[in-house]
Amino acid sequence: MDGANNMKPDGRKIVIIGGGFGGLSAARNLKDTDARVTLIDRKNYHLFQPLLYQVATGSLSAGDIASPLRAVLNKQKNTEVLLGEVIDIDPDRRKVILKDGEIDYDDLIIAAGSSHHYFGNDDWESFAPGLKTVEDAAEMRKRVLFAFEAAEREKDPERIKALLTFIVVGGGPTGVELAGALAEIARETMKNDFRNINPGDARIILVEGLDRILSSYPENLSRKAQDSLEKLGVIVETGCIVTKMDFRKVTVKKGEREEDILCETILWAAGVTTSPLSKVVAEKFHVERDRSGRIPVNANLHLENKENIFVIGDMALTLGRNGNPLPGLAPVARQQGAYVARLLKNRMKGKTTGPFRYRDFGNMATIGRSQAVADLHKIKLSGWIGWVIWLFVHLMYIVGYENRLLVLIQWAWNYVTKGRSNRLILGRDIAEKIKKGIPEAEEHSDKPKHQKIF
Amino acid sequence: MDGANNMKPDGRKIVIIGGGFGGLSAARNLKDTDARVTLIDRKNYHLFQPLLYQVATGSLSAGDIASPLRAVLNKQKNTEVLLGEVIDIDPDRRKVILKDGEIDYDDLIIAAGSSHHYFGNDDWESFAPGLKTVEDAAEMRKRVLFAFEAAEREKDPERIKALLTFIVVGGGPTGVELAGALAEIARETMKNDFRNINPGDARIILVEGLDRILSSYPENLSRKAQDSLEKLGVIVETGCIVTKMDFRKVTVKKGEREEDILCETILWAAGVTTSPLSKVVAEKFHVERDRSGRIPVNANLHLENKENIFVIGDMALTLGRNGNPLPGLAPVARQQGAYVARLLKNRMKGKTTGPFRYRDFGNMATIGRSQAVADLHKIKLSGWIGWVIWLFVHLMYIVGYENRLLVLIQWAWNYVTKGRSNRLILGRDIAEKIKKGIPEAEEHSDKPKHQKIF
Repeated sequence: MDGANNMKPDGRKIVIIGGGFGGLSAARNLKDTDARVTLIDRKNYHLFQPLLYQVATGSLSAGDIASPLRAVLNKQKNTEVLLGEVIDIDPDRRKVILKDGEIDYDDLIIAAGSSHHYFGNDDWESFAPGLKTVEDAAEMRKRVLFAFEAAEREKDPERIKALLTFIVVGGGPTGVELAGALAEIARETMKNDFRNINPGDARIILVEGLDRILSSYPENLSRKAQDSLEKLGVIVETGCIVTKMDFRKVTVKKGEREEDILCETILWAAGVTTSPLSKVVAEKFHVERDRSGRIPVNANLHLENKENIFVIGDMALTLGRNGNPLPGLAPVARQQGAYVARLLKNRMKGKTTGPFRYRDFGNMATIGRSQAVADLHKIKLSGWIGWVIWLFVHLMYIVGYENRLLVLIQWAWNYVTKGRSNRLILGRDIAEKIKKGIPEAEEHSDKPKHQKIF
Repeated sequence: MDGANNMKPDGRKIVIIGGGFGGLSAARNLKDTDARVTLIDRKNYHLFQPLLYQVATGSLSAGDIASPLRAVLNKQKNTEVLLGEVIDIDPDRRKVILKDGEIDYDDLIIAAGSSHHYFGNDDWESFAPGLKTVEDAAEMRKRVLFAFEAAEREKDPERIKALLTFIVVGGGPTGVELAGALAEIARETMKNDFRNINPGDARIILVEGLDRILSSYPENLSRKAQDSLEKLGVIVETGCIVTKMDFRKVTVKKGEREEDILCETILWAAGVTTSPLSKVVAEKFHVERDRSGRIPVNANLHLENKENIFVIGDMALTLGRNGNPLPGLAPVARQQGAYVARLLKNRMKGKTTGPFRYRDFGNMATIGRSQAVADLHKIKLSGWIGWVIWLFVHLMYIVGYENRLLVLIQWAWNYVTKGRSNRLILGRDIAEKIKKGIPEAEEHSDKPKHQKIF
């Protein structure tokens, strides 16, 4: 049973940091090689992040979109999964340094992903949680549901209005999807759930700094997405930036006009930066990161001066055919993982590999129950057809057949009933926090952040 | 949309404390009356506790066995759900006192349930979590999975043995079901998941103080359950009590012999006591609780001297036909809730109601994948047939058709694949805790307990 014995003792040691789309794809594509593969992650599961907003808004359980890494990889006898946190890399001794140990490598694939970025306003994190982890999703879900609960108990009409105001910062796909789902929860799912408030009175405001939402999409799809959101009752504010926030209000600036919005729930879908490991990599290997913290790699996805150190996914700065950096999307990471695996297999056979080319099949985002926009380059789709395609593509890429089935059933169910049965507020001692409203300053001042919330 | 307007202003105010089996059943059965019903709970969902051990052992997501109370009751226009914590009752002013407010009542149904009880060893809670809430289940799941992860990283064979030793305290249905599920996880689900340890080496020890497990069942079913557990590799120790525990070991006493077992994961399925509210009720209404903290009620399930104060479910001390107290089981609570609703409806019509009679359809417990024991009085079943009946009965009682479908699919899936796809370790900063092992003393010394763990 000692699986280690199944590994070729003389195989190359390939270490992969991160079990997201990039890292997992690399690991899977290194199956059936003589290499000894070690995949390190801080979590024991792979997460299908594109659907995380549905966990945040109570449509799905975290378990539906997460797969234990050990279960995904347990048939690959040459692959070991290690739950651990990487804090450093020692290129001279060829070791990855964990908080509690060291791992030897011959080749290293760094795919540690990204997290939220508050543009220098780090204190905003306690007011406006982002959406990268299961814990983030639970936090968002809790704040949204809490706001309605607190409004139901509140007598002051001003405060009720503030509790029923939800601001989503950032008009990219995540922000658009969150805002659409929030509008549906308020107008449909919870329509009959309260006795003192009308959840349909909720104001959902999507704030985007650029002049249109989904700015990486063609203009007409942006416009269609905005139309769909507005039909759901979302207030879309473009050319509008957040300048200040606290637990009771948000200050936004549109042109010259500054305005305070009383609001107790802010969801962050704006800035993204790379994992802290990118700083370590930049220092150790003397490379310069771009503004988003990404590490430049060459056409073979390794560091210019180190051909056994690969960086892929959200952490990598790679240029597309048009000379622009590739976006931080699942398909990019997945293709890069597969590419590096192929390159390493070729190397083992003494062959070289051509440069990485991203095959861009397009972008898509959903807006609520049956609307989506899809930019498939030659074809631009919106509305119901866009949504069906969105649905199909996402189902296809979820890891694990069981998860696919569970997600499909819950989507079908929610579609028919307009219900969302996963809207549980998890955590201890929640009831006592209701009346004061959740986002109390003292709740969040502790370090590490959020810990008391989940 | 203001649902409050749908309530008859002159209807009787019926307040229900607790949205478990008893409270929810009372609320549902008060539908279509002129009464104005308020259901208060500390959580925003009803939980199907009998399947909570499957969440703890990674077979199901919490969302699969929980239903938002508002969603369950939103069609009942005379019913209001209130997320709040009851701390006191003022019978003179007929008010229920919340942490943050007051609610008037004419009739009060108290159904606040029970929690773990450590027989005077309250510090054991940090070593041995119980299983009453979703957060408890997440805590158990985390400790179990962590122990395997830590063992995989450990070099010291002694420590590996301690990490792979799991002690379940208490041989009632919960303890039996937990032990069976743990054995299956170790021997089947995770069989191929590790490279340095063999999860099949795990020792699962079920400790029961009485001379047989499932002591409320007929003797031959106890024996069959023990056989089934032993076939799964569980070590069953009857007539054995725990006398000491800490984060590294458990001391058990069997007859005169005391023994230390090195063990880092202890699961508590032994003592149960009533919710702290029972103390308040006892003091306010001058009644004496029994040893388990239960409130004695008369044959109409109200306090002897207060005919508008009902106590039902785990909190109530009611006697069965044989003169013994009714057990703290879902069917008892459910029937009591329905009974009180009927009694109140009769009262509104000026009619009296006969005494409560529990219709006991029997007891059942599962042992692993396809074994169960069922005591249906005239029929005693075990093995596969018992399991099919267990499955059918549990599915029938889960609230919400969607949940039924999700649970059924996951059971079918797990049955065929022997998989358990929900084994996610949730919580922040988990990886760094691995090497030292989770249950570090400093992790648990904070108050309130567990808060850092989830």
